[in-house]
Amino acid sequence: MSSAASEPIFADRLLNDWLASVGLGIEYSRAEANTLYFRDGSGREVPVLDHVCGFGSLIFGHNNPDIIEHAKSVLDEQIPVYVQLSRQSHANALATVLNAILRRETPSGDGDYAAIFANSGAEAVEICVKHAELERRARIVRLTDDVLRHVEEAREAVGAGRATVAETPYVQVGAARDDREKLEHLIAEIGRRNAELVAKGPVHLALENAFHGKLVATVQLTQNPHWRMPFIALSSSTRFLRADRPEEMKGAIEDLRESLLDILVADGAVTVVERDFPVIGAFFVEPVQGANGMRPLTEAAAREIRAVCDAVGCPLIVDEIHSGMGRTGAFLASSHMGLQGDYYTLAKSIGGGIAKNSVALFYQDRFRPEFEVLHSSTFAKDGFSAAIAMKVLEMLEADDGRAYRVAAERGERLMEMLSSVKADFPGVVDAVDGIGLMVALEFTDQTRATSDLIREKAGSGMLGYVVAGYILREHRIRVLPVGPAGNSVRFEPSVHLTDEDIARTESALRDVCAIIRDQDGDRLAPR
Amino acid sequence: MSSAASEPIFADRLLNDWLASVGLGIEYSRAEANTLYFRDGSGREVPVLDHVCGFGSLIFGHNNPDIIEHAKSVLDEQIPVYVQLSRQSHANALATVLNAILRRETPSGDGDYAAIFANSGAEAVEICVKHAELERRARIVRLTDDVLRHVEEAREAVGAGRATVAETPYVQVGAARDDREKLEHLIAEIGRRNAELVAKGPVHLALENAFHGKLVATVQLTQNPHWRMPFIALSSSTRFLRADRPEEMKGAIEDLRESLLDILVADGAVTVVERDFPVIGAFFVEPVQGANGMRPLTEAAAREIRAVCDAVGCPLIVDEIHSGMGRTGAFLASSHMGLQGDYYTLAKSIGGGIAKNSVALFYQDRFRPEFEVLHSSTFAKDGFSAAIAMKVLEMLEADDGRAYRVAAERGERLMEMLSSVKADFPGVVDAVDGIGLMVALEFTDQTRATSDLIREKAGSGMLGYVVAGYILREHRIRVLPVGPAGNSVRFEPSVHLTDEDIARTESALRDVCAIIRDQDGDRLAPR
Repeated sequence: MSSAASEPIFADRLLNDWLASVGLGIEYSRAEANTLYFRDGSGREVPVLDHVCGFGSLIFGHNNPDIIEHAKSVLDEQIPVYVQLSRQSHANALATVLNAILRRETPSGDGDYAAIFANSGAEAVEICVKHAELERRARIVRLTDDVLRHVEEAREAVGAGRATVAETPYVQVGAARDDREKLEHLIAEIGRRNAELVAKGPVHLALENAFHGKLVATVQLTQNPHWRMPFIALSSSTRFLRADRPEEMKGAIEDLRESLLDILVADGAVTVVERDFPVIGAFFVEPVQGANGMRPLTEAAAREIRAVCDAVGCPLIVDEIHSGMGRTGAFLASSHMGLQGDYYTLAKSIGGGIAKNSVALFYQDRFRPEFEVLHSSTFAKDGFSAAIAMKVLEMLEADDGRAYRVAAERGERLMEMLSSVKADFPGVVDAVDGIGLMVALEFTDQTRATSDLIREKAGSGMLGYVVAGYILREHRIRVLPVGPAGNSVRFEPSVHLTDEDIARTESALRDVCAIIRDQDGDRLAPR
Repeated sequence: MSSAASEPIFADRLLNDWLASVGLGIEYSRAEANTLYFRDGSGREVPVLDHVCGFGSLIFGHNNPDIIEHAKSVLDEQIPVYVQLSRQSHANALATVLNAILRRETPSGDGDYAAIFANSGAEAVEICVKHAELERRARIVRLTDDVLRHVEEAREAVGAGRATVAETPYVQVGAARDDREKLEHLIAEIGRRNAELVAKGPVHLALENAFHGKLVATVQLTQNPHWRMPFIALSSSTRFLRADRPEEMKGAIEDLRESLLDILVADGAVTVVERDFPVIGAFFVEPVQGANGMRPLTEAAAREIRAVCDAVGCPLIVDEIHSGMGRTGAFLASSHMGLQGDYYTLAKSIGGGIAKNSVALFYQDRFRPEFEVLHSSTFAKDGFSAAIAMKVLEMLEADDGRAYRVAAERGERLMEMLSSVKADFPGVVDAVDGIGLMVALEFTDQTRATSDLIREKAGSGMLGYVVAGYILREHRIRVLPVGPAGNSVRFEPSVHLTDEDIARTESALRDVCAIIRDQDGDRLAPR
């Protein structure tokens, strides 16, 4: 189907072999809107309908002509691209437009957001991890400063004979000669225990099946154990929660609770009191789980998550990297379920399909301005990707948000089609889910299938990849499974999706569903 | 000097105020080669000679016309930019060219390097951290598998009465009824101790004054405590070493040593033996320290570092993000000092001043192919930045490497000028250092200066910024300090640096050196 490159492979050696083995080892030569092209043996261009669209990063399609023209004119203008430590007008203009949109889109509808730019979605999440830690450290310093003040108060009171020191469960002070010595024993023990606690890293909260990136810290926020476990010793850990089980969520928070020890002088006695220690760094939430069947959060779950963060006092980080930028029919997917975040992240389509850009947005009341000097990146805040992002935002917002309406309407058509396939193949399709142009179809469990091939591929989590290979070979349509559990296929096309595209996709899905229904593994087998 | 933007500031609010306070708050409107332009009050374009050049990311200058033309033609060709999980021909072609260059440049001169692409320099280093951890985990698994096998051998031997179990310092087995029970006590205690060790994260090695990025893991490899300490609880720690003190380096390695406990049956007795545990993840090294006076590693230091890595068995990661891509007059700065790495990182100029790209290259014998499926990034391996990088490499390699020779020759001229300034201002200039177009001038300690302004700015580490503000205002030349310790200024222009540029820079430096010599703080003060 595709010619193997003649040169040796220095990138993706294993990956390319594996792609070939499932029928996905195509080398595409051109891309336009929702179509990828490869050249067949005779050199003829073969079009492929692309439902992957850069893992959802192409809301306006491959090589959108308006974005391309804009990029070329920006290049001709000789704008400063990399000018660190100067007033970066393009990045600031972009932050200004993002603020106007967030003011409209967020449930609270007020306040400003400080923008910290980065180069990939994962980097934006890493920035949130760093900023949340600054917040946590500031709370810890306030607590430990209190303790230090109270220690001095106790020393004064005991020194003046105004207070005595009793035995406590924290330290045996029986051997001490007098109250002063008892107090010093107690202070030393409290100091030791508190220092241990203060040195510990935070625990982050995230939802089961979360995906927040694959850098060292962010991969720990991505639940899939295959990607996460090999690196678990490198970084802070995450507690994965189910938002649809609020009691379980509260129990987990309770489990994580730790106390800092403080000293109080009251009624002539020095006593030890426990104070809530900020163990939890932040709660990371995707409004639509892109690695989990494209499942949107319910409004009830959104309320529970907000309540947890308010109770704990940690920031709620709404990760809109996958779901934002219009993909679900609104600029922010979280608007649909009324989820109010403290930080937001954006990436993917903000790059316009050409550039790389991402941003973490911090609600003004939580933003720590020193972060602007603590954090930096050579490539961030660059003029080129900021100029491209401005064009993308202009296109999204044009005609009173026509693009959002198109995304919603095209998504509904796509969902109707998937639902009709589901209705006609009840034993084959388990679920269709998603919102706007971020939807997925999940197959029923095939690990007990009668077809050897289907059963084996389902057992190794590869069924979705084999299905993708089949649909590509037989129907010239590119789909991919959702996340690594390959039991489903995702659809994240651009707004240019046509009725004909949907009809072609329907034929392909009905064909593959019939094969699975009929357990005709031979037809599915990669060639 | 520059007009304040009329819109509110949503990015860099604090940073812009601070830049304005030191006279660096300029908004540049155009950039070309080594020149940035801003518009003065009357709208006239004012040229500024740029020695910062994107923190060394513009080896061919701002908006290089050949790169711009290439970018525009790439955009016209509608190449696939984001096509994850397909054969990505542009990224692979780039990896192939990089391999050809590395084969020529690395001291060993043989072998292939697997390329993992990313989106920023820091991401390339994060990838190295992850890969080194995979290597370490594999070594741990081999060790623990050995222990499990030996445990079974001991059970067999003791069960068959072929061996007895003696008291050991590891566990008191006195209370046990028989050798079988003693052995189980011992096995449990060894298991507990080993499990604790295995769960611990690695310690990384890096050099004092290292800079390897600012993401969650990489900021721990960047020594500056101001940037690193707030986030120290988030990620694995680093031991910072001095390569010019090999005995100290060996001592530090010895300090870090930890042992896994193993069981051996010998001469009819079960004994406990200690086996070296892989505590150290990797050694990260910049051939020229970009945040430390642009100091190149000596050949002796390079040999010592290689020897440490060979003794420890950890990968030596040569971070060429700042120094690579021709900046020092060779493709790799490490070639100058004969430093052979196991992994290499590249970024900055690989983006051609437009795109964002970076790569981690792994020597074939160490590369773990599963990394290709474990790690991924939506924006990585994109066609656009790969096509730009190909153009940059073509330009570097053209005419048998003319660009490298120009970088070396221009750097020598620059260094000669800096050395003559140093010679004429012995009490003002402490050192000039660097290689190729990566050089710096360090001022003498001014924390006891008689001028109040000079003394205070030196005391707060801001002297370099104030000097930069002065040179910008009075000479229309942009320089910045090296790293956060603002006692020096850096020069990292493109290969287009002219003799006239060097002469203008010399006048500016002589002017500022005379001010410092004469302790004329008033002239230096930001306006």
